[in-house]
Amino acid sequence: MLGAFPDGGRQTRARRYSGPINTRIVLARRPVGWVDEGCFATEDVAEPEIGPEDVLLQSVYLSLDPYLRGRMNEGPSYAPGFALGAPIVSRVVARVIASRNARFAVGEHVWGFLDWAERVRVPRGEGLHKIDPALGRISHAVSVLGMPGLTAWIGAIQIGQPVPGDTVYVSSAAGAVGQLAGQFAKRAGARVVGSVGSEAKRAHLLARGGFDAVFNYKTTPPDEALRSHCPRGIDVYFDNVGGTTLEAALRHANAAARFPVCGMISAYNTEGDAGIRGLQAVLTKRITMTGFIIYDHVHHLPAYQARVAPWLRSGELWFDEDIVPGGLAQAPAALVGLFKGEAMGKRLVQVAPE
Amino acid sequence: MLGAFPDGGRQTRARRYSGPINTRIVLARRPVGWVDEGCFATEDVAEPEIGPEDVLLQSVYLSLDPYLRGRMNEGPSYAPGFALGAPIVSRVVARVIASRNARFAVGEHVWGFLDWAERVRVPRGEGLHKIDPALGRISHAVSVLGMPGLTAWIGAIQIGQPVPGDTVYVSSAAGAVGQLAGQFAKRAGARVVGSVGSEAKRAHLLARGGFDAVFNYKTTPPDEALRSHCPRGIDVYFDNVGGTTLEAALRHANAAARFPVCGMISAYNTEGDAGIRGLQAVLTKRITMTGFIIYDHVHHLPAYQARVAPWLRSGELWFDEDIVPGGLAQAPAALVGLFKGEAMGKRLVQVAPE
Repeated sequence: MLGAFPDGGRQTRARRYSGPINTRIVLARRPVGWVDEGCFATEDVAEPEIGPEDVLLQSVYLSLDPYLRGRMNEGPSYAPGFALGAPIVSRVVARVIASRNARFAVGEHVWGFLDWAERVRVPRGEGLHKIDPALGRISHAVSVLGMPGLTAWIGAIQIGQPVPGDTVYVSSAAGAVGQLAGQFAKRAGARVVGSVGSEAKRAHLLARGGFDAVFNYKTTPPDEALRSHCPRGIDVYFDNVGGTTLEAALRHANAAARFPVCGMISAYNTEGDAGIRGLQAVLTKRITMTGFIIYDHVHHLPAYQARVAPWLRSGELWFDEDIVPGGLAQAPAALVGLFKGEAMGKRLVQVAPE
Repeated sequence: MLGAFPDGGRQTRARRYSGPINTRIVLARRPVGWVDEGCFATEDVAEPEIGPEDVLLQSVYLSLDPYLRGRMNEGPSYAPGFALGAPIVSRVVARVIASRNARFAVGEHVWGFLDWAERVRVPRGEGLHKIDPALGRISHAVSVLGMPGLTAWIGAIQIGQPVPGDTVYVSSAAGAVGQLAGQFAKRAGARVVGSVGSEAKRAHLLARGGFDAVFNYKTTPPDEALRSHCPRGIDVYFDNVGGTTLEAALRHANAAARFPVCGMISAYNTEGDAGIRGLQAVLTKRITMTGFIIYDHVHHLPAYQARVAPWLRSGELWFDEDIVPGGLAQAPAALVGLFKGEAMGKRLVQVAPE
C-alpha cells in the first residue's frame, strides 16, 4: 500500500504569498463520480500567528475516511459540504507547538476537526480533544479508540445485537470499521464472514484472525459466497457499501435480521443510483435496517475506550493502520486511493513525525 | 364499491360431484404480475360431514387482505404459498352450524384461517377463535379488533413512536390498516398526512377525520404533496406500498425518522423490481426502517382490543368496512378489485347472513 502514489504531488500548487509559508490543501473542484487528484490544490499561505488564548498546532496524522466523499459534494449529507477553494477538513492528530492557552501545553497531542495544513491556529483551542498517551498510540485517537472504533462497536454490538450462534456478515471487512466490527461480533460469539476487494486483503484478514470466512467480492459473486459461508443465513449485516452487496445480504438474511447501515460507499462515487432491488425482504423477513451516524453516539466514547483499550494492549484485539508517508502532499492521492479500495485498515497520512 | 363486479361469476365452475354439494374457491393458476379472475375456479365438492370432536361452520365473512397476493406465488413469502388446485385460505368469520365438540355450541361465531367455502369442517375445532360479541360487530374480529387493527397499532405506535409535534405520513391511508394507523398517530398528537389513490377516498378520509391532510398520489406528485403537507418533514412513514412512494418519503424524512414497513403492495403485483433509489438517506438521515409481520405480535391482541374497543364504542375511533355482498362467488372479483385499489376500508365478502 505504502508508496503507491507516484502522482501524489501532481496537483496545482498555487503560490500567492511570499512571506514565511504554511501549506494547505483545498477543494479545487467538485468531483463528478469518482474523485481524482485534480479535485485538490496545494496552496502556500501565510504562516499562522497566534493571539491570546490561541493554540498553534503541527499536524501529525490526517485521518482519511469514506465519509469525506459526501462532504466534497455540494448537496447536504450528514456533514456540511466543503466550500470550493476552502481547505479540506478532517479529524487530525496534532502536536501543540505554541500555546497562549493555559489548557494546552507545548508538546501535548490533541485531535480535532482541522484544516489539512502543515500548521493550524486554533482560536482559544476550541474543539480540541487531548489525547491520553496512556491509552495507546496517538494515532489510535482517530482510529481504533476513536470514531471508526466506536462506529464498529455501535453498529456491530448495539444495533446488531449478535448472540452466540448468529451469523454476522461485514462488508469492507478490511477497512478501519469493518475489521473491528468483525472482531467485536466474533467476541460476542457469532460466526463472522467478511467481504473484501482483493486477494491480499482476504489473505491478510484470514491470517489476522477474528473472521471465520472472508471472500473477495471481485472474484466470487456475493450470492455464491454467502450461500457457502453463511449456510444458516445472515442475522446481522454490517453494511459499509450498499449497492449489490446490500441486495445480496437482503436475499440471504434470516427472519428478524438486523442491518446496521454505516456506509454506502458504492453510491458515494457514482453519479447514478441504480436503486436497491429486493427491498421487500425488509417486510417479508421483518428486517430492521438502521442507519446510524457516529455523531449521535459520541457520548459512548469514554466507556468504549475503557472497554476496548485493554483488549488492544493485551493483543486480544488487532488493528491495522495504513499510514501513508511523505507528508501533506500525499493526502490527495491517499484519499483517492482510499475510495478505490487501496487501504489496508485505517488510512492516515503522516504529515510530520510524532 | 358494492356491486362493482359484473364478472364475478365468470370463473370456471367444475362439477365433479353429484351428491349434496358444498362450494369452494381454489387457485386455478398462478398470477404473473396482476391477478385476474382467471386465477380462481369455483368447485362443487362433497358436503362436509363431521366426526367426533369436529365442528361444522357456515362461512359468514371472508377477510380479503393484500398479503394474500404473496401467497398466490410459488416462492416463499412470510406465509406459505397456496397449492395449485387447493382452496384459497384467509381469515374467515363463521357460525357454528353443527358441533360434536364441547367447546363450541351451535350459533356461536368464531374466526380462523379457513378455506374459502360455503361450509367448512374443522377437525376437533382446532385453530378456531371464539368471537366475543360484547366487543363489537362480529366482522370486527378480522378487521378493526383483529389483525389489521393490531398491525396499524404496532406500526404506528410501537415502531413509529410518534410524539406531539411529529409528522406522520401514511400511504394507502383509506385501507384497513392505513385509516387506523393515521387515527392512532393523531391520537398520539402527531400531524397526520395520508395518501390515497382516488378523489373519492380523499374526500371520504377528510370528511371522516383523523387526518390533517390527504392527497391523491395519482393526481399530485408525492414530492409536491409532501413538500406542501409536511412542511417540517416526515418523522414517521408508515409504508404500505413501497416503490416511488417510499422513495419520496426517504427524500422528505427528517433525521432519526422511523419507517415501519407494513406492506409493499406496489411490488406485489408487478413482475419487475425497479429498485428503491435514494436508500442512502437511511444512512445520511439515520432512519430506522423496520419490517414487521403481525404474526410476531399476536400476543398483544388482547391488550390492543381492551384499549381500542372502548374508543370504537364511544365513536372516538371510526372504521370503514367495505362489505361485498353476493356470496362466495364474488370473492375472486372482490380480491382482484382490492389489488386494484377499489376497496374503501377493510374489504370483506359476505358469504351468508350473520
